[in-house]
Amino acid sequence: MEFSSKLLENAVNEMSQLPGIGKRTALRLVLHLLKQPEDQTHRLANSLNQMRTDINFCSNCHNISDTKLCEICANPNRNEKIVCVVEDIRDVMAIENTSQFRGHYHVLGGKISPMDGIGPGELTIQSLVDKVKEGKIEELIFALSSTMEGDTTNFYIFKQIEPYHITTTTIARGISVGDELEYADEVTLGRSIVNRIPFENSLKST
Amino acid sequence: MEFSSKLLENAVNEMSQLPGIGKRTALRLVLHLLKQPEDQTHRLANSLNQMRTDINFCSNCHNISDTKLCEICANPNRNEKIVCVVEDIRDVMAIENTSQFRGHYHVLGGKISPMDGIGPGELTIQSLVDKVKEGKIEELIFALSSTMEGDTTNFYIFKQIEPYHITTTTIARGISVGDELEYADEVTLGRSIVNRIPFENSLKST
Ligand SMILES: [Zn+2]
Ligand SMILES: [Zn+2]
Repeated sequence: MEFSSKLLENAVNEMSQLPGIGKRTALRLVLHLLKQPEDQTHRLANSLNQMRTDINFCSNCHNISDTKLCEICANPNRNEKIVCVVEDIRDVMAIENTSQFRGHYHVLGGKISPMDGIGPGELTIQSLVDKVKEGKIEELIFALSSTMEGDTTNFYIFKQIEPYHITTTTIARGISVGDELEYADEVTLGRSIVNRIPFENSLKST
Repeated sequence: MEFSSKLLENAVNEMSQLPGIGKRTALRLVLHLLKQPEDQTHRLANSLNQMRTDINFCSNCHNISDTKLCEICANPNRNEKIVCVVEDIRDVMAIENTSQFRGHYHVLGGKISPMDGIGPGELTIQSLVDKVKEGKIEELIFALSSTMEGDTTNFYIFKQIEPYHITTTTIARGISVGDELEYADEVTLGRSIVNRIPFENSLKST
């Protein structure tokens, strides 16, 4: 694509760095912004800048939070002994939406994926293992999506905490294999948490 | 969607103002940015801010340009008497890409579309009519997409300039009816400019 404007070209190039946004789509989005009041572009740009600079992660569960301790971790009515292991904030939002879970979360920040260069060190696994070691957790619920990466991550964590003999469960697979957690309907997702099964049992079935 | 962070919520809300970007997609894009180095977000935000503030439109053809007069209008080897009327910069880029056209452009900035509240006054039609009045144009080539809005716009302009008896043509419809110009392949698009027909003839066929 040859542009008649460097300003336009820069904006399109940066926009097309986003996943799933090609050059054509980026151009369409940028031209749309040019037709809107200037203010809209500045609000978008400033919200991104501010988010990226000031974003904070809960010191306990690693979920995105504007406070040092997130609302869930700070809530005395939730059971900190039962911890649900998820990939990212979208899974927390999806599970919270079912109102079926009153424990805590542990947000890994991704799944182990050698293809994408993501090893255990890139995730918050160590801090989870530490919590188990310190006797802070009675039950760990694995709620990663049931992909190969999800299964690998579950198993890696399971091996690390096995010596400490806590209860490990995994959410019931009412959700079809390979589906992303965040797209599951509330009822199915809620039920799959209520009917969670011992993690060892889930290994037998595969 | 209930967010655990106002910063995240703001960024997602602003992002989802873009056409075709829903809340879920916006969240996915924003979470992607959080995983990338801070610098990437700032480059994106700053390129958008700068573009929106400093963007300039050619004083002659109204195309996006970093200079007062765009490269095409400033090129003495191009024929300013033959003017191709297009909707926006994407059409200029598509036609330039064919290397079949050595005239000038006139960028309308859209099509007449009462449904979207776009009347002739929102477009650069008056400045085009003025150029015709002043005897600066010998041939006007209509190259809007052949949608109802495109046809309406063509016809509106045609009526305005009819008294001045210049040649009006329309690009050959090798391009299928209803298709967007920018998605046409180069050969078809190039040929449709070379084989342009008198505008009056295109009216007879509908
Ligand atoms: Zn927390
Ligand atoms: Zn120009």
